[in-house]
Amino acid sequence: MSSQPLKIVVIGGSAAGPKAAAKARRLDEHAAITLIQKEADLSMASCGFPYYVGGVFDDRNQLICTPAGIVRDPNFFQKAKAIEALVETEATHIDRAAKTVTCTHLPSGETRTLSYDRLVIATGATPLRPPVPGTELDGIHTLQSLGDADALRAIRDAGKVRKAVIVGGGLIGFEVCEALHLAGIQTTVIEKTDSILPFLDRQLAHLVENEVRRQGADIITGNGVAAFLGEDGKLAGVKLDNGTELPCELAVVAVGVRPNVALAEAAGLEIGALGGIKVNARMQTSDPAVYAAGDCVECRSLITGEAVRAPYGDLANLQGRVIGQNLIEPDSASFPGITHTGICKVFDYTIGFTGLNAEQARASGISDIETVTISGLDIPGYMGGKVLISQMVAERATGRIIGFQCIGPGDASKRVATVAMAIRGGLGIEELANADLPYAPPYSLALDHVIVSAHVLENKLKGLMRGLSAVELKERIDSGAECFIIDTRTPQEYEEERLGIGEHLIPVGALRSRLDELPADKSQEIILYCKVSMRGYEAAAALKANGWTNVKVLEGGVLAWPYPREK
Amino acid sequence: MSSQPLKIVVIGGSAAGPKAAAKARRLDEHAAITLIQKEADLSMASCGFPYYVGGVFDDRNQLICTPAGIVRDPNFFQKAKAIEALVETEATHIDRAAKTVTCTHLPSGETRTLSYDRLVIATGATPLRPPVPGTELDGIHTLQSLGDADALRAIRDAGKVRKAVIVGGGLIGFEVCEALHLAGIQTTVIEKTDSILPFLDRQLAHLVENEVRRQGADIITGNGVAAFLGEDGKLAGVKLDNGTELPCELAVVAVGVRPNVALAEAAGLEIGALGGIKVNARMQTSDPAVYAAGDCVECRSLITGEAVRAPYGDLANLQGRVIGQNLIEPDSASFPGITHTGICKVFDYTIGFTGLNAEQARASGISDIETVTISGLDIPGYMGGKVLISQMVAERATGRIIGFQCIGPGDASKRVATVAMAIRGGLGIEELANADLPYAPPYSLALDHVIVSAHVLENKLKGLMRGLSAVELKERIDSGAECFIIDTRTPQEYEEERLGIGEHLIPVGALRSRLDELPADKSQEIILYCKVSMRGYEAAAALKANGWTNVKVLEGGVLAWPYPREK
Repeated sequence: MSSQPLKIVVIGGSAAGPKAAAKARRLDEHAAITLIQKEADLSMASCGFPYYVGGVFDDRNQLICTPAGIVRDPNFFQKAKAIEALVETEATHIDRAAKTVTCTHLPSGETRTLSYDRLVIATGATPLRPPVPGTELDGIHTLQSLGDADALRAIRDAGKVRKAVIVGGGLIGFEVCEALHLAGIQTTVIEKTDSILPFLDRQLAHLVENEVRRQGADIITGNGVAAFLGEDGKLAGVKLDNGTELPCELAVVAVGVRPNVALAEAAGLEIGALGGIKVNARMQTSDPAVYAAGDCVECRSLITGEAVRAPYGDLANLQGRVIGQNLIEPDSASFPGITHTGICKVFDYTIGFTGLNAEQARASGISDIETVTISGLDIPGYMGGKVLISQMVAERATGRIIGFQCIGPGDASKRVATVAMAIRGGLGIEELANADLPYAPPYSLALDHVIVSAHVLENKLKGLMRGLSAVELKERIDSGAECFIIDTRTPQEYEEERLGIGEHLIPVGALRSRLDELPADKSQEIILYCKVSMRGYEAAAALKANGWTNVKVLEGGVLAWPYPREK
Repeated sequence: MSSQPLKIVVIGGSAAGPKAAAKARRLDEHAAITLIQKEADLSMASCGFPYYVGGVFDDRNQLICTPAGIVRDPNFFQKAKAIEALVETEATHIDRAAKTVTCTHLPSGETRTLSYDRLVIATGATPLRPPVPGTELDGIHTLQSLGDADALRAIRDAGKVRKAVIVGGGLIGFEVCEALHLAGIQTTVIEKTDSILPFLDRQLAHLVENEVRRQGADIITGNGVAAFLGEDGKLAGVKLDNGTELPCELAVVAVGVRPNVALAEAAGLEIGALGGIKVNARMQTSDPAVYAAGDCVECRSLITGEAVRAPYGDLANLQGRVIGQNLIEPDSASFPGITHTGICKVFDYTIGFTGLNAEQARASGISDIETVTISGLDIPGYMGGKVLISQMVAERATGRIIGFQCIGPGDASKRVATVAMAIRGGLGIEELANADLPYAPPYSLALDHVIVSAHVLENKLKGLMRGLSAVELKERIDSGAECFIIDTRTPQEYEEERLGIGEHLIPVGALRSRLDELPADKSQEIILYCKVSMRGYEAAAALKANGWTNVKVLEGGVLAWPYPREK
């Protein structure tokens, strides 16, 4: 270490910035560390905003306090971490040759120039707004800053808004949808594309839609916002692409974010094709003295090897920690990349994903894949098990798992974390199929949902099972295609709940003695299912062995059927 | 496939046996499959027995039914799976030369000889009983069979037993302890060794003891059962090794199981050093036509490469599935081995583990290890987060993670599953430290408990932090060793709760201005902590930078302190 203290400047005080600064401090007590934050608050728990807005908790301090209850203000940063935090201060210029950052204290207009040995850019991202008329109207919000959260919480507490629209059917859109619905506001989510939550397979997305509607909120897909409509400067409704007008007093726009790269770009730092600051595995920009992390950067996908944007709070913290190490000991730490993992709660459903779905895999050039959709309980029925529905994706040639989505009222979070780690470890289906997971009835089935998922996918990869998705079967039925559909459940189950898609009820236990009821033409398509399609699979094996050649299993069975059912 | 149907005989109808038989059936509709089961029931959900005994559910059928509510009796096996199941039938002899199995129908005494092409041995295990006087007394139970569960449930329902002892402080012992306690029975767990739950580090085991006592059950360690005491043939108490007598009307013995290998041994099959049937990765015994799985076999540890016994229901199912495949297509499937993963619920605590603890690692010859104990919340406090306390173990030379234990009222199950998969993938600490896990406030902290655990362990491996366990600090204090202890929390936290071990209160935010209060001798041992010891670590870094050379952090802080505290 030189006798001169190392000068570190960090731009951005939300997640990545403070983490980099604090880690650097722990590694070098004598460095001079300055944090520049445009907003008034520091280290806000941004991901908690929807829960504050929704009234899950009322103490706003929880969003800006340490677990011990100390507000993370400049005094705290100074005392506990010996970091100088300049709040309400905007960094306006980086001079890389002179190694200085110029910043302005916004309330006073005072300008300072700070010199640095090493610089961190963690400028975050800005919510996008659709390029349509009326975005200036009062009543149109986003949920990015603590100020945004305060405004929405005030609307909730005032209790005057009756109808709201959420523009954008992604993670944050649905978190806000739930928050507003909990506040008694009639809420409609508007999604421009055909399907909500683009990281989900369509069948799963459809099941989430059902849950949202069941709870009383509404969803409109395949129809974007054409204009915000107002009266006296106040929002009064939205007009959709198809001309429909929806009255509402509140709109929350959640159509994604744009990385804040203006400062970096003006400083001549390289910007990637996706619009984020380009960094290497050390989180170093094209200037080795300048690091960047968080929502403003592009990082690397461990699955495709390609650059991706992944504006998630956990990654910002991880990247900040890597930078903190490299600030003090250059090249001592790496951020290996991401596995595209995320999760959100939407009413009683957990919706999680890791890796790529089939569509994303194909779009990334990984086209030789196999997928499987399964349904089942998270823990035994006698312990109060709840439903999980998931789709797993593997590369056919290698068997490598490349994606998993899991939804439902059951504990999807654990299953997604498990598969995320399997993907990170590069596990193949056979390895996952034999994994030794913690089993006891309060926590899982003897064969956990992810294990069963791997088993069925392995069966498909080995050609032991041919599957059909609910989406495919629905298309088959709607097109009037000839197929022989068998429900292999018991008469009692059939009486309680049934699809009503022209199926024949032949319980698996009776199938072998009722083969004469099946099509004489052994090449006719036969589709089997049960509640989860395990019995459907057993029955399919028996039919194949008896000469039928075109036998398929409706994946996920009755539990994963997203369309209206007869009963 | 030959024109003659393949003859498969499976001995054992609990978990591995039925799974092997059912999987074989799905792969070969025409094989002749016979299942021999000594008990009256088939495919019982054995791991659910404690919850049935404890009254978590009342419908006994749930233990022997399919999820669709069909009892898994011989009729079900015949109809749904075309498997002949012979219940109440004991296999008495295997003639490997003739390829036959002789069995006796127990109620009638009738004997049959079945010939096989391939044989599966899944004979399970038998609960051990301590070799002490009095084991014949009425009132001494185990919990292995459905009959055992029925008997204990009847005792619960009768409501007459007031006092019970559990002999053995392992997983099943504590599951039964909770079940009996829920039934209003005053229960004491007796453990011969010094510590309960031998897969746990001592500090964690101590915290579990505290939880059990807090709930009102008792634990005695370091004291085995010397004799069961009786009156008129009925259990009246137990006498311990140290002479203490405990009155009780019920004793449940849960001191482990012995693999049932007599049949295999008599047939000349190789038995391993640990007493289980020896199998290869195909789950094949020393006779290639004979497979074995479940509680009666030894399998391989993926961590040590050595043979281990792992009598868990999930593994029995996985192994059964591998056998099912190999029965039909020899050498088509392998069981790679285990990662020593398990879990149980003990009152409000979840107790999970994967891999080896430090003691087990050293006993297996992996002695150059580093461990870390941390504490924290599973999800943010504002979302109702609950405490987790864990210990992670890594190999120092490679950084490979080899063990993790996690306990507490928080969601330990997810964390154990996550690390189990990391261990299976052979991940090193740096990979786990940067893992992309599903983050949203209802499911985890921005940096999940396992990530933080990896971070702190990485810090220790890099020499950035020196830790001290609560056990070590307690020994230090009890021995009167001179050390300077600093609680770095706030005065308010100190007022609410404190250890009272001679500590000085110096909040981390004041430390840098109060260095003059620290020992002048810079080599004196200084031990720091806070609630979870994050601030303790920050403070330690500051002290080291200011010249103190012997600075340590109390790992896990106040939350993980297992001893009585002042307040």
